[in-house]
Amino acid sequence: MIISVADIENAYTKIKNSIINTPLVSNDFINNTLDAEVYFKLENLQNTGSFKLRGATHKISKLSKEIINNGVVAYSSGNHAQAVAYAAMNNNITAKIIMPKNAPKIKIENTKKYGADIILYDTFFENREKIGNEIKEKENRTLIKPYDDIDVIAGQGTAGVEIANELQSLDIIPDIYLCCCGGGGLVAGTSTYLSYKFPNLKSYAVEPDGFDDTKKSLENKKIVENASNVKSICDALLAPMPGNLTFPINLKNLSGGICVSDEEVRKTIILLSEQLKIVVEPGGAVAAAAVLNNKINIKNKKIIVMISGGNIDLELFRSL
Amino acid sequence: MIISVADIENAYTKIKNSIINTPLVSNDFINNTLDAEVYFKLENLQNTGSFKLRGATHKISKLSKEIINNGVVAYSSGNHAQAVAYAAMNNNITAKIIMPKNAPKIKIENTKKYGADIILYDTFFENREKIGNEIKEKENRTLIKPYDDIDVIAGQGTAGVEIANELQSLDIIPDIYLCCCGGGGLVAGTSTYLSYKFPNLKSYAVEPDGFDDTKKSLENKKIVENASNVKSICDALLAPMPGNLTFPINLKNLSGGICVSDEEVRKTIILLSEQLKIVVEPGGAVAAAAVLNNKINIKNKKIIVMISGGNIDLELFRSL
Repeated sequence: MIISVADIENAYTKIKNSIINTPLVSNDFINNTLDAEVYFKLENLQNTGSFKLRGATHKISKLSKEIINNGVVAYSSGNHAQAVAYAAMNNNITAKIIMPKNAPKIKIENTKKYGADIILYDTFFENREKIGNEIKEKENRTLIKPYDDIDVIAGQGTAGVEIANELQSLDIIPDIYLCCCGGGGLVAGTSTYLSYKFPNLKSYAVEPDGFDDTKKSLENKKIVENASNVKSICDALLAPMPGNLTFPINLKNLSGGICVSDEEVRKTIILLSEQLKIVVEPGGAVAAAAVLNNKINIKNKKIIVMISGGNIDLELFRSL
Repeated sequence: MIISVADIENAYTKIKNSIINTPLVSNDFINNTLDAEVYFKLENLQNTGSFKLRGATHKISKLSKEIINNGVVAYSSGNHAQAVAYAAMNNNITAKIIMPKNAPKIKIENTKKYGADIILYDTFFENREKIGNEIKEKENRTLIKPYDDIDVIAGQGTAGVEIANELQSLDIIPDIYLCCCGGGGLVAGTSTYLSYKFPNLKSYAVEPDGFDDTKKSLENKKIVENASNVKSICDALLAPMPGNLTFPINLKNLSGGICVSDEEVRKTIILLSEQLKIVVEPGGAVAAAAVLNNKINIKNKKIIVMISGGNIDLELFRSL
């Protein structure tokens, strides 16, 4: 087994004072409309506006004294960037972050605000892994990968610990778990913990249309890449293929993958703001979009829906 | 004493399965910016989008079998309207609600959605109390007042029970409590409970400029009315004067009143959406506006901030 429940529990013990135990909320209007009980895990209310702070905080907490002071480096479309910058700031170390030029402004600005050096790159002509590795070698910084790292996966899994604790305190046994999926770190970590606590739970990765690499890989039982000419508003979920570490975990834990369209995501963001009174970014809304658009039979069932982030540019939010 | 801690605890026992135990959240970025620890009580995440469901649910739960089936009647600018409609629907009784023609669309639509009969009136030429009393007499309905009713105040006070439980579980003793104030029911109920649990707590009513009737009344130790020619975007907080029941409670509990401008409220709504990832209506944002605009010295202090509602028309939200 690549990752154990104990890894996730240990991660939680390590980071729980550095992160927010985010709320798990339900809403009668949505439940009545869907004829189901939906529990939304609000990681958009996490510090830095997404779950990514869990993995970054955990990874940095495990660096040795010898190397931590050389600082860290990371590449990210934005949420991992903010998380690494923030965790580095809290540990008084420096961070260099490689971000795409076209990342949402809010993500670039917040990463700066948290004190990181930002290197913008062109997603078309440049390779972020290459830039990251060069900086890593030259400056002896530790590279904090966005998902394909066992400590990062364990850190993201701590959201599952909180969900399980909350549901158990309410005597609720969930039937279905829906989680967004880019590289698959969050769904790998959380589904490992939740499947252990609730053995009959069926977990699904939810992806944007065109970026359904995990869905296809699960169907083919091997890693399949996305076509390169696709687009989506879900900027946080555009990984080209499942991770080498995350995929085997997800293959073991998940019952399958689900896709949603940008239009379904847009409508979901509006509904979540009108009914749940929360601000959600496109990538953070895909799991909710799956239940609200009947992508899976949820009637009379208890469903956990991960809301993974809220870093949406206000201009985009307004335009919806 | 008009209302006791036991009244509020009994109300909580009665209604806790009919309402959401809403989250109390903190945000490092806001805390670091303010050099303080701020705990936001998210009643915008309550069913119907505001705390008003607490009072309405409690009041209806106390109606006798003889009168409950005649239904209820209420007048409200919108949040109490939705709450009474919703609580009536859950009790299988009918509701007639008198609302101003110019109430936010989302509030009128939701009240309809919850199955109430709506009577729109002109705030300039008509008197809502008169219309309400006529319906009450003619149809033998019970009038559910928006704030000046001891069962309603006790119901709103249950938000204080949840805040105290949560803070005590975290070993936190708050220094300051800031709560929005229209007729004063929410601040009366919650400050009664919070002052009992935290005897050194200083509580303040926060009002929009021009509608600072509670602030002035506290200063004068008697009920003072607002001027009639004032305007505010805080549609939920436009009561003309403190209530006959709420004012003596607030005079006993509160350390004073604070005012904020519409412009300060607008900026606060944006900041809360960008940083806390929540949707807040103008009236629900005044307490947050007070801390974010340094209306009171909060340095190094622990502050509870009530976010009372999130029913904002998306057009207004967009226009900010």
